Amino acid sequence: MFLDQLDEGLDAVEEQLRQVIATDVTLLEDASNHIVESGGKRLRPNVTLLSYLAAGGQNIFEAVPLATAVELVHTATLVHDDINDHSLTRRGRIAVHARWGRTFALLTGDYLFTKVYELMAPYGAKFNVIMANACVKLVEGETLQAEAAKNGAINQVIYKTIISRKTASLFEAASRMGALVAGAEEDIVEALADYGYNLGLTFQIVDDVLDIVGNPQTLGKPIGNDIVQGAGAFVAQNGKKTLNRNITAEIDPIKDMLAKLRDSGAVDVALAQAREWASRSRNSLSLVPYSLAREELDNLVELVIEREN
Amino acid sequence: MFLDQLDEGLDAVEEQLRQVIATDVTLLEDASNHIVESGGKRLRPNVTLLSYLAAGGQNIFEAVPLATAVELVHTATLVHDDINDHSLTRRGRIAVHARWGRTFALLTGDYLFTKVYELMAPYGAKFNVIMANACVKLVEGETLQAEAAKNGAINQVIYKTIISRKTASLFEAASRMGALVAGAEEDIVEALADYGYNLGLTFQIVDDVLDIVGNPQTLGKPIGNDIVQGAGAFVAQNGKKTLNRNITAEIDPIKDMLAKLRDSGAVDVALAQAREWASRSRNSLSLVPYSLAREELDNLVELVIEREN
Repeated sequence: MFLDQLDEGLDAVEEQLRQVIATDVTLLEDASNHIVESGGKRLRPNVTLLSYLAAGGQNIFEAVPLATAVELVHTATLVHDDINDHSLTRRGRIAVHARWGRTFALLTGDYLFTKVYELMAPYGAKFNVIMANACVKLVEGETLQAEAAKNGAINQVIYKTIISRKTASLFEAASRMGALVAGAEEDIVEALADYGYNLGLTFQIVDDVLDIVGNPQTLGKPIGNDIVQGAGAFVAQNGKKTLNRNITAEIDPIKDMLAKLRDSGAVDVALAQAREWASRSRNSLSLVPYSLAREELDNLVELVIEREN
Repeated sequence: MFLDQLDEGLDAVEEQLRQVIATDVTLLEDASNHIVESGGKRLRPNVTLLSYLAAGGQNIFEAVPLATAVELVHTATLVHDDINDHSLTRRGRIAVHARWGRTFALLTGDYLFTKVYELMAPYGAKFNVIMANACVKLVEGETLQAEAAKNGAINQVIYKTIISRKTASLFEAASRMGALVAGAEEDIVEALADYGYNLGLTFQIVDDVLDIVGNPQTLGKPIGNDIVQGAGAFVAQNGKKTLNRNITAEIDPIKDMLAKLRDSGAVDVALAQAREWASRSRNSLSLVPYSLAREELDNLVELVIEREN
């Protein structure tokens, strides 16, 4: 019964993702479909829908457009990220800019973002303010990351700021909006918002670790890319201080860097930090009344920590 | 008294443009300021504020955030357009991507767009739906234009679709939101929306003509760029049918093309079309009660037709 409702919600999100991107401008629809259909974990919509149910929501379809919008924001950023990172593959498929060219990829990212806005607009001020703030933070985080990569200057504080803005903010918006649309009391909304925020931090650090120790086949993208872009630098700085971070986009230095990182103990330090955030995420759930949905949110933390792609 | 109020409104828009883009991510603030401070005609905020006053609005500051948001959308698109068009100057200044690089320019455009969303979010569903629709159309129009340029396939119908979506939609949103926030009756709102839409069409065709016959110094940007990008192709197609449109980004063919175009009579045909739209724009005003603001909206049409930059 509970799982049926979640599945129906997730199916509805898939359906709506496709509906929302429909347009008579075929190229935009094709390029949007290309990235949307490539799947991905749909982690953020899961967070929205489960938060809705855990907060006592009775009709999952109330939360579907919000879940769709959150996934669309994520999708839009992937398209623009891949342009900036020169990544040629994404989720095992050719990246949008590699297939349609940079101009159309830039426009496709813009298009997906305007579609988020269009989808959210009828929801009124409360939800739009949350989503807009998350989007602003996301772009700020991406910018701080690109700057840190360029300047080679990163430390634990900057890393936390970056992943807090570029990743955790949207996860927080995902759970907060789910709880709010369920009509939950403020303490429940805040507990679930904290859950989402800390889950987001956990997710991102695991993501950066996977860029170092992951399997490119399982990930559907090459590894070492974040190190080149500076994103995995926090993980790196936990390693031997003498590690030379002056790496370039050539293949051998990356392989060398990754091997050194794996041996340096940096990954273990990073994963310990991720477990700390994971535990905060779980602790927030103790303020939420027991339900199967809460149980599932708890399981999600484990999945994020244990994931291999 | 009337002009005082308009000036106060326009000053408030300038002030708010600067406030809105403030962030601790210095690079985003600097790059945003660079494009915002470069000025521009502020035509869209003028349309919003004048529509507000013409619709009977009494407190111009009610319309200021909407006017600011409309200008910010336009500003965001300029940053992304300049990346895609490889334009090195804008409003007589170096383009954002030429100064900060493509990655940061892409992020600056995204940032400005998320700031539009943040600024609009408190306004509730009615205004956000209008703005979101305009933004979607804008990106669709830009995409159709880039496709037409790439395929070298353009005709009068496609050209109208392109400029309707990429330019007229935002002008329409500008006047419609101004009238709505003034609390005007539906027929007044629609009349002012029509005014904005037709003014937008007029504006764009004059823009494309200026790209052929304008003075680069007065314009603050090089001419011939739109022809290369395909935007001025409608103007071109009004000329001699034997005109060879297989031009590239080299300097001489553009000069040659522009010279041929000026001699072909194409510009006169295009301007005749612009005058037709200008006259529709003015006619819409006849449904709006007389006021100094309505008079000023009428003057704006003339300014748009006669403008040299």
